[in-house]
Amino acid sequence: MTKLQTAQTATVSPSAQKMLAGFKYFNLPRFIKITPRLINRIRTQFQSGEDPIEQSLIKDGNLTTTTLALNDVTGIRITGASVNEDGPVILNIHGGGFIMGTARERTALLAATETPFPVYSVDYDLAPEAQAPQIVNQVLSFYRGLIETVGNRPIVMMGSSAGSGIAAAVVEQAHAQGLRLPAAMVLFCPALDVSGNGDSSIFNEKRDVGSAKMALRLAKAYIGANDQKSPIVSPMYGEVGDWFPATFMSTGTRDIMLSNVARFSEKLRHADVEVTAVIREGMWHGFNWEPKLPEAVETRQAAWQFIKQHVGETL
Amino acid sequence: MTKLQTAQTATVSPSAQKMLAGFKYFNLPRFIKITPRLINRIRTQFQSGEDPIEQSLIKDGNLTTTTLALNDVTGIRITGASVNEDGPVILNIHGGGFIMGTARERTALLAATETPFPVYSVDYDLAPEAQAPQIVNQVLSFYRGLIETVGNRPIVMMGSSAGSGIAAAVVEQAHAQGLRLPAAMVLFCPALDVSGNGDSSIFNEKRDVGSAKMALRLAKAYIGANDQKSPIVSPMYGEVGDWFPATFMSTGTRDIMLSNVARFSEKLRHADVEVTAVIREGMWHGFNWEPKLPEAVETRQAAWQFIKQHVGETL
Repeated sequence: MTKLQTAQTATVSPSAQKMLAGFKYFNLPRFIKITPRLINRIRTQFQSGEDPIEQSLIKDGNLTTTTLALNDVTGIRITGASVNEDGPVILNIHGGGFIMGTARERTALLAATETPFPVYSVDYDLAPEAQAPQIVNQVLSFYRGLIETVGNRPIVMMGSSAGSGIAAAVVEQAHAQGLRLPAAMVLFCPALDVSGNGDSSIFNEKRDVGSAKMALRLAKAYIGANDQKSPIVSPMYGEVGDWFPATFMSTGTRDIMLSNVARFSEKLRHADVEVTAVIREGMWHGFNWEPKLPEAVETRQAAWQFIKQHVGETL
Repeated sequence: MTKLQTAQTATVSPSAQKMLAGFKYFNLPRFIKITPRLINRIRTQFQSGEDPIEQSLIKDGNLTTTTLALNDVTGIRITGASVNEDGPVILNIHGGGFIMGTARERTALLAATETPFPVYSVDYDLAPEAQAPQIVNQVLSFYRGLIETVGNRPIVMMGSSAGSGIAAAVVEQAHAQGLRLPAAMVLFCPALDVSGNGDSSIFNEKRDVGSAKMALRLAKAYIGANDQKSPIVSPMYGEVGDWFPATFMSTGTRDIMLSNVARFSEKLRHADVEVTAVIREGMWHGFNWEPKLPEAVETRQAAWQFIKQHVGETL
């Protein structure tokens, strides 16, 4: 990552300054072939870092996690001590570049800690074992099952990074199939375009914590035989109308996916959809899942506030 | 300006692609001293380019312009053929890096063309002949005069670039003095921090149409003896509360001032002020004043829509 100048450190929190200074830029050199075995190694390494963090979030948040299956798709249900079992629920679609991560990810745990909403988080199959249409259909099945489970309670669909891309694709499919749509969407650092298009995939290469080029190479495992601009993998190119749920999106000025927020905001605005876009100074891809980083805490609070406004629930 | 890659041109309009390809990057080499004489030459050159454009905007928009003085501060009043003389009015504060530009600038003319609102645009003295406190006070006097002139009609304060910085400083002053505040603010590509702080003053250097470093050097003529972070010159550092008017801001991913929008949005949100931030893919500093560029037209429409929502006027 390029060294920060004073003009850049002056405008982020001290915690962010410290994190930015400590980041190890993540890239895979071009000559390394992305094989299932490599992906497996990345997964294991990633998860071994996440496990203790997830465990402490569960402990600190006094959370209860229960595995469940909806329409044969597995997931977990996460609730905090002061859960409201009559109000809205969150359906979380985890991030991890389509190739790693689990339903128990931080964002799901933090949502259950910081809101009264029960969080249902889906454990979709990962790429390359599964590919786009299958994964989108799995999440859609889980969503159908959730509608049946919660009845009239509003459902908020939430995703991070790859999970946000899946979320938007699922909503486009749900609309096409005449399903009841979520009451609101919360899309953190959304991967809405896996074609590589976007100003920020160029200008934030080497400024973010990981490489945009590498993310695109990994996404190929998800895209499979689909066109990179097919809405099933890149919902940026899908048809949206005023039926699309009110949407909250967040990103940071260092995020390789900033342009997705810029572009999708316009697309939704153009379709008369209510949209709130939060672009945080100096923040990187996935910053939203940091438990204590002030910028992340504030961004999540803005998201919970947005949910509150759109489902009429007092937080 | 750095050459654009396909991933970057694919996401902007054909007109924007053409403009981006044709831009001549504007910078002043370090060894050139910024003298009043040089500033005068920049002004003359700038205005000779603007004059024919302004004249054709007046003609095409069938606009009437009348010079006026409010509390001894001069300005112009611009109205279109279908002006509404009972509704809200716009107070425009022109851009031009504090050292150039006039009240007749494009943004004022376009607002009078695209909305039914009469536009009052103030001709504040320019730097280095005048400096920050004097300029802010002039605009404040003009604003006071406008309140007396329009009575109960809502006033929307609008600025571009340097003008947005002045606008925010004026509102902070107006609040401190107990004046009636504008009903809403529209801040295009706002210069809210002349200290140079901000991620985008680094990452968009050489990506925008002009240099951030040069803009800061020119702003010194405006800052004078003030601290660069004094709220009078950098309203980013001012005290804001929920009294601050609902604010629309716009910027682009190439704008050297993008970080101002990111940071000021957070500041306002934190103070419980309603804020809409539009960040347009691939757009540069000041793109909003292009008469026909689709991205600019849409951004202005979003601003007029925001005004409509906050003053209850049908456009």
